[in-house]
Amino acid sequence: MDDAAARDAAPSRQVPARSLPIPRTVSAQLARSIAALTAAPAVPLSRAPATAEEWRAFVAANDAQTLAGVPIFAERYPHVCALGEIAGVTVRDIMPANLDPSRAGQRLVHFHGGGYTMNGGEASTSEAVLMAYYSGLRVISVDYRMPPDHPFPAGLDDAVAVWGSLLAERPASAMAMLGTSAGGGLTLATVLRLKALGLPLPAALAPSTPWTDLTGASDSYRVNEGVDAIFTSFGGVGHAMAALYAAGTSLNDPLISPVNGDFTGFPPTILTTGTRDLLLSDTVRAYRAMRAAGVDARLEVHEGMSHAEYIYADESPESAIVFGDIAAFFAEHLQG
Amino acid sequence: MDDAAARDAAPSRQVPARSLPIPRTVSAQLARSIAALTAAPAVPLSRAPATAEEWRAFVAANDAQTLAGVPIFAERYPHVCALGEIAGVTVRDIMPANLDPSRAGQRLVHFHGGGYTMNGGEASTSEAVLMAYYSGLRVISVDYRMPPDHPFPAGLDDAVAVWGSLLAERPASAMAMLGTSAGGGLTLATVLRLKALGLPLPAALAPSTPWTDLTGASDSYRVNEGVDAIFTSFGGVGHAMAALYAAGTSLNDPLISPVNGDFTGFPPTILTTGTRDLLLSDTVRAYRAMRAAGVDARLEVHEGMSHAEYIYADESPESAIVFGDIAAFFAEHLQG
Repeated sequence: MDDAAARDAAPSRQVPARSLPIPRTVSAQLARSIAALTAAPAVPLSRAPATAEEWRAFVAANDAQTLAGVPIFAERYPHVCALGEIAGVTVRDIMPANLDPSRAGQRLVHFHGGGYTMNGGEASTSEAVLMAYYSGLRVISVDYRMPPDHPFPAGLDDAVAVWGSLLAERPASAMAMLGTSAGGGLTLATVLRLKALGLPLPAALAPSTPWTDLTGASDSYRVNEGVDAIFTSFGGVGHAMAALYAAGTSLNDPLISPVNGDFTGFPPTILTTGTRDLLLSDTVRAYRAMRAAGVDARLEVHEGMSHAEYIYADESPESAIVFGDIAAFFAEHLQG
Repeated sequence: MDDAAARDAAPSRQVPARSLPIPRTVSAQLARSIAALTAAPAVPLSRAPATAEEWRAFVAANDAQTLAGVPIFAERYPHVCALGEIAGVTVRDIMPANLDPSRAGQRLVHFHGGGYTMNGGEASTSEAVLMAYYSGLRVISVDYRMPPDHPFPAGLDDAVAVWGSLLAERPASAMAMLGTSAGGGLTLATVLRLKALGLPLPAALAPSTPWTDLTGASDSYRVNEGVDAIFTSFGGVGHAMAALYAAGTSLNDPLISPVNGDFTGFPPTILTTGTRDLLLSDTVRAYRAMRAAGVDARLEVHEGMSHAEYIYADESPESAIVFGDIAAFFAEHLQG
């Protein structure tokens, strides 16, 4: 059983249909989130857009949902968001009301999720706002370019350009990098690129439920299909997003699927996922690759949690633990 | 959604039947293990034994399979196994051929798995032999008493008695404790009891895919039902084993379901599970409880791995990583 064909020829496991109740083993807030998302899925993922026009409509519908949460987050997690530009790239500089004055020189660099297609513009800052709140640090959220107009490597180029400019202002040891889903994948791809360029690396990384294998090979894409309440299925839209982003470059390229990268020399990294996460395997595989490369990596898994649900169920104790753990990890590794 | 009734009334997620191919994202050896176990399940778990007589037949059938592996393990992982008795409890003292002479004073204390019903006697040492091989340390494998003749707390009493005797010979800082499944649960329950007794605790723990909630509440009992190739379903035999072991004591008792315990002051702990593990949630929930209590805990998850498959697929690279990680963790924390 050494090649893909032999594995495919082996008998598959036949798993019968099932009815999954709300877990009794999660908080009341997370239970409510699961119930609400089961009744009304977050993103309509059944059919992939076929044209650039259809992609824009698909993205607009998703982003409208995300944007509806912006004023709620502004109230719950008070902050000032300053629109700006670094190295020609649009960024939002999130200054939390609870800024830690003793660490005012530190910065977190954030890449939003959304399959490299969604959550651009004003929809890009949810996780950055939560991270600023839980860490007391300023967060630079990078509004990187995306397809259909700007496929790979435009977003990666933006990420690297922003980092290069930030390095002119403060040492790498005072900065960490984070992101969820595509933003977690972009975090890892960016550091792979920085390593190749010989540039100083961030002091720490927090890729959360990172999209690390765009080929769709991860086992959890099948095991947790329909189980995950947010990213319910990879099949339709997942492959389409991957193809739209890669735009002809191999999906196996480590800068697109960073699980294939060489993580030797990577900074300390904390990875987060959930037992119901469609990207559980993407996260676990990246963690294992980092550990095999000798990276100081930590894996955090949460009971009953779907893909990125710590952002959707932001008032759950689980969400506070996710961001609290990342904040503590950053505090341990950031200097200045 | 604050109580169980409200959660049960919320709409369940309907997950359709599926066919799970052998993952392309695991080693060839683990892929062969998954294929073989899919063709011929390890333990017949569909129907729970109803009488003590039926339990003995069920256990004998399982143990015969385990015993068939003993000579194979003896060849692959050369060691001397000395049968003995400590504090009136049967133990097997495993001395690996590759004993590390610089750490000859250190000991690992092992509790076998098997749902508190199976794998006693000569069938108890598989994991102990692997651990001895990968650590170069002597392992005391405790053949604790089990139901139907000796339900809770007999096994726990045995574990505590052995530990108490070992403490007379060497400091707790030179000893670590480990076990898989029920053996992982017993590891945690034993340390809860030692804490209550005010006895010195082991220097480190390695509960792997530990059975920490015997009530069956964990979400992965449902999500990974039929997905796990080894412990395919909790429903039939799982509940029966729990009831047979508890013998009337509440399944919520922390000494039976240690996920309910207070882990404050626990030693450094490494927990291991897999993405297909029926006890993924039991492991994750225990990890979260330990972290919440401030324990220096580490979580290791392996792609595509079923319950305790690192013992069944002992020649896989994944198995070597599991035991290598535990051995390194022990080396970091053991003294003497």
